[in-house]
Amino acid sequence: MTSNSANNRTDRLQYLTDRIEIQDVIARYGLGQDLHEDGDNDVLREWDAVFAPEGRADYSITGVPDLADIGYRELVDFMRRPGGSMSGLKRWQHFQAWSTVEISGDTATARTPHIHTHQGETDGQGWNLIQTGMFVDRLERRPEGWRIVHRTLEILWMDTFPVAA
Amino acid sequence: MTSNSANNRTDRLQYLTDRIEIQDVIARYGLGQDLHEDGDNDVLREWDAVFAPEGRADYSITGVPDLADIGYRELVDFMRRPGGSMSGLKRWQHFQAWSTVEISGDTATARTPHIHTHQGETDGQGWNLIQTGMFVDRLERRPEGWRIVHRTLEILWMDTFPVAA
Amino acid sequence: MTSNSANNRTDRLQYLTDRIEIQDVIARYGLGQDLHEDGDNDVLREWDAVFAPEGRADYSITGVPDLADIGYRELVDFMRRPGGSMSGLKRWQHFQAWSTVEISGDTATARTPHIHTHQGETDGQGWNLIQTGMFVDRLERRPEGWRIVHRTLEILWMDTFPVAA
Repeated sequence: MTSNSANNRTDRLQYLTDRIEIQDVIARYGLGQDLHEDGDNDVLREWDAVFAPEGRADYSITGVPDLADIGYRELVDFMRRPGGSMSGLKRWQHFQAWSTVEISGDTATARTPHIHTHQGETDGQGWNLIQTGMFVDRLERRPEGWRIVHRTLEILWMDTFPVAA
Repeated sequence: MTSNSANNRTDRLQYLTDRIEIQDVIARYGLGQDLHEDGDNDVLREWDAVFAPEGRADYSITGVPDLADIGYRELVDFMRRPGGSMSGLKRWQHFQAWSTVEISGDTATARTPHIHTHQGETDGQGWNLIQTGMFVDRLERRPEGWRIVHRTLEILWMDTFPVAA
Repeated sequence: MTSNSANNRTDRLQYLTDRIEIQDVIARYGLGQDLHEDGDNDVLREWDAVFAPEGRADYSITGVPDLADIGYRELVDFMRRPGGSMSGLKRWQHFQAWSTVEISGDTATARTPHIHTHQGETDGQGWNLIQTGMFVDRLERRPEGWRIVHRTLEILWMDTFPVAA
């Protein structure tokens, strides 16, 4: 074994480890939403290990200008406070795909498709609002692991589907 | 190269190998359902390599008390026998997400979101029953590979969607 | 460290690298469709790094005999040319799952479930055509990376869902 091939192996092992760790961060975002429903709003239990402490997001594609630059803790409040944007929903799921990732040293960018579903009811008629889109993330390697420093939401389509009683 | 760093690399390589192998087991569960439709019920072709021989499941969240503690072969029978719980469906898909996994030696726990869809028809009106949820698994490393020893089904939401003729 | 164990580690590292690279190719196929909507049809920006130059597909399960054996560039043309098969759609997403892969040297086969969704509108009534299925791929390791040499589309179910105005 040459020293070069050993170094090469170490680099590849690091790359693979990074990919799996970043994929786990992406999955944890969805768990933060989906492990907390029915009045439990403790999303930060997961998201404090998803975002860097100063992590921010741009969700302005939803049509809400205030979401163009918002800290992740404020984002949780926006969605989960009494009367917040998710308060009218019954149940939901935030399903994440495999991420396409570019890593450069201690920084990375990731693009991740998602299918987000939201069950609701209006005047006794059930419906399900489905959003497909992608998250585009900048991540940094921190002592505690990979963390999102900035997340942008892109939407592909949103439709509200009627459901049977 | 110190012996420590070599050991460390071996440990990390083992961890990554375990993660991929466990993900493959999770995927194989879905294939067990989805490679066998239209009267073919040979789910065990895949599931015998998904579950340990003594593997059991708790699917009682579906509202069926008998499913609180059932062997995986009995579960196949429950769903796939003539008149079984899936006998009224036309087609289906069991789509699995990336798993969040904790490994400790030869045991592991995994949490995997899913989207399960089921196409049916009643009195000429087509419908699609969509279930979103998660599987929570205990796995063990066996000589033949990682196997699920216990699987619990959690449901996030279920809705029946009408479809066009 | 024995030479054997070093070789074994190198083989395992290669296998894991291959799995991640193949998964990235699978994801790139979906990005090729979904990064190009609203009149942008530059699918080849991604697909030229998905398929081998001579890569072909069999999508005849859609009911179009001409798609039984078609080059991937012709497939883009079939879908994306003016009046092509996707020209009547408003928006779409091509969501790919974890692939089950068998690698043998420089060739591989992969089976990947998918959920493809297509938003449209007819006479003012919105709808969403959802297709679930699997891709079955033969891949080869090329100097530029893993590439699909043949892709077969399998469909599990397709339904058109009405959506609210």
